[in-house]
Amino acid sequence: MRFLSETESAALVTEELAYDAVRAALVAAVDPASTTFPALPAHGSLPHNRFTMKSASAHDVAGVKIGSYWPDNTDIPRHNSTILLIDQETGRIAAVVEAGTVNAYRTAAADAVAADTLARQDATTLTVFGTGHQARYECTAVARIRPIDTVHVVARTPAHGADMVEHLAAKGLKATVTPAEEAVRAADIVVTATTARSPLFDAAWVRPGTHLASMGSDARGKQELPPALLATAALFCDLPAQSTTIGEFQHALARPVTALGDVLAGRAPGRHDDDTVTVFDSSGIALQDLYVATALLALSRT
Amino acid sequence: MRFLSETESAALVTEELAYDAVRAALVAAVDPASTTFPALPAHGSLPHNRFTMKSASAHDVAGVKIGSYWPDNTDIPRHNSTILLIDQETGRIAAVVEAGTVNAYRTAAADAVAADTLARQDATTLTVFGTGHQARYECTAVARIRPIDTVHVVARTPAHGADMVEHLAAKGLKATVTPAEEAVRAADIVVTATTARSPLFDAAWVRPGTHLASMGSDARGKQELPPALLATAALFCDLPAQSTTIGEFQHALARPVTALGDVLAGRAPGRHDDDTVTVFDSSGIALQDLYVATALLALSRT
Repeated sequence: MRFLSETESAALVTEELAYDAVRAALVAAVDPASTTFPALPAHGSLPHNRFTMKSASAHDVAGVKIGSYWPDNTDIPRHNSTILLIDQETGRIAAVVEAGTVNAYRTAAADAVAADTLARQDATTLTVFGTGHQARYECTAVARIRPIDTVHVVARTPAHGADMVEHLAAKGLKATVTPAEEAVRAADIVVTATTARSPLFDAAWVRPGTHLASMGSDARGKQELPPALLATAALFCDLPAQSTTIGEFQHALARPVTALGDVLAGRAPGRHDDDTVTVFDSSGIALQDLYVATALLALSRT
Repeated sequence: MRFLSETESAALVTEELAYDAVRAALVAAVDPASTTFPALPAHGSLPHNRFTMKSASAHDVAGVKIGSYWPDNTDIPRHNSTILLIDQETGRIAAVVEAGTVNAYRTAAADAVAADTLARQDATTLTVFGTGHQARYECTAVARIRPIDTVHVVARTPAHGADMVEHLAAKGLKATVTPAEEAVRAADIVVTATTARSPLFDAAWVRPGTHLASMGSDARGKQELPPALLATAALFCDLPAQSTTIGEFQHALARPVTALGDVLAGRAPGRHDDDTVTVFDSSGIALQDLYVATALLALSRT
């Protein structure tokens, strides 16, 4: 069994590696030979400490990602991830990859692939809701694939906002803390990376041509986007079955939802024109983790 | 993260260790502070290669057992198991224990604990259906807790039966290949360890006072025991919710089923008298795996 520690995987992962692996996974996810099994939520000795098993198989890989959320953690991350690959020849565990940092890259890469596929080519203004760990990865991943020159940070507290602006500046991104309405009205791309369970903004603020991505943590009850937006925008996600049960599209059940993999594979249209409002919901699928882990293991051999 | 390889765990495990850990797990499984999460079946790139995630938490442990079944394996085991323990302080994976051989001990230990709790003290004759890997572990585990002087092996082919008799002789057990009816009529304890999906024998052959254990692999459709037996015997299992959905007691839905842990904890009666026919269905619960892994890790430190 091969093992990559958190330190090793965090040192190996890059935005490029995550982007390529996640893109391949999104295409593989819509292959009829692939299966994404239902996410299984569980919990620790204390029921508020939660872990979820997400498993999948494709023609070339099968395995499990165990994601944990220990809300009482203070000096260490609350979220952790471990990816297990199963040897398809023997059925034994082929590799264990600790993937806490990797998971942040993986999640942001899904957003980047979606924005690269769906956002206007001339998108320069990014608005992000949320100031947490994940929100920061989202900004740099999106800035890699579009000529972002302004980031509007919508923060629940000025201190959190200022801290994030400083962080983004260190990454070379010009950012400001901006009120929600002004930030949404100015945005070419809106990313929500919060734990919200009710809409974060008004659909009327969204201008034509905007691309929006809901990246927040998934659970029944998840809601970051306004229903009026979901009622009119073109809807895309990683895995429709999952997005409509634990993702944002719980609130858009009557609308057609397109798998991003079908757009990537050329089987479904993406953005219609420069005025289309596109929404991508990322619920996170195990094939992304399995492909990223496979890429990390290949890289660690070189 | 700690790691015990298949070689290490197989060298450390003993029938005593498995018995003690499984007994503690059966008691913990009925503690209101414990949760056994639904078993999640998945499959590999080839759909006939299957793996299942079984997860649980108790006051002192939480984690997952990934059990795989690769039917095309020939020179290596078809069944494999890997146990993951989650650090309850941090949510990170604390340990990975490869547990292929350990799983056979764990399964047999559940049978042994049940027989020790439910079988007559003077049980000397053991009948076993099945000649596979698991059937062999069952015989030695039961012989450890009762004064077994005769083992009747019911085999689908004489060659398989002869091979198993030879194996048991090497373990110090006097065994013979015996036809099903004669073997059941003579038995104090009957163990079924097959993949049957229809009854293996006639309920009328079972004499008063017999203890029976169904250890075969679980799935919807599993059936090793005759319905007439399930309609009259006292029924026990590791986890009623699981046993009535994927275990033997799918076929005994209207009857009361007692968790063995409640008997072990003194909260429920076991055998009523020397004429009671007792049936134990082992569907296998993750807490058994987690407790066995914990014991192995403690032993490996010494």
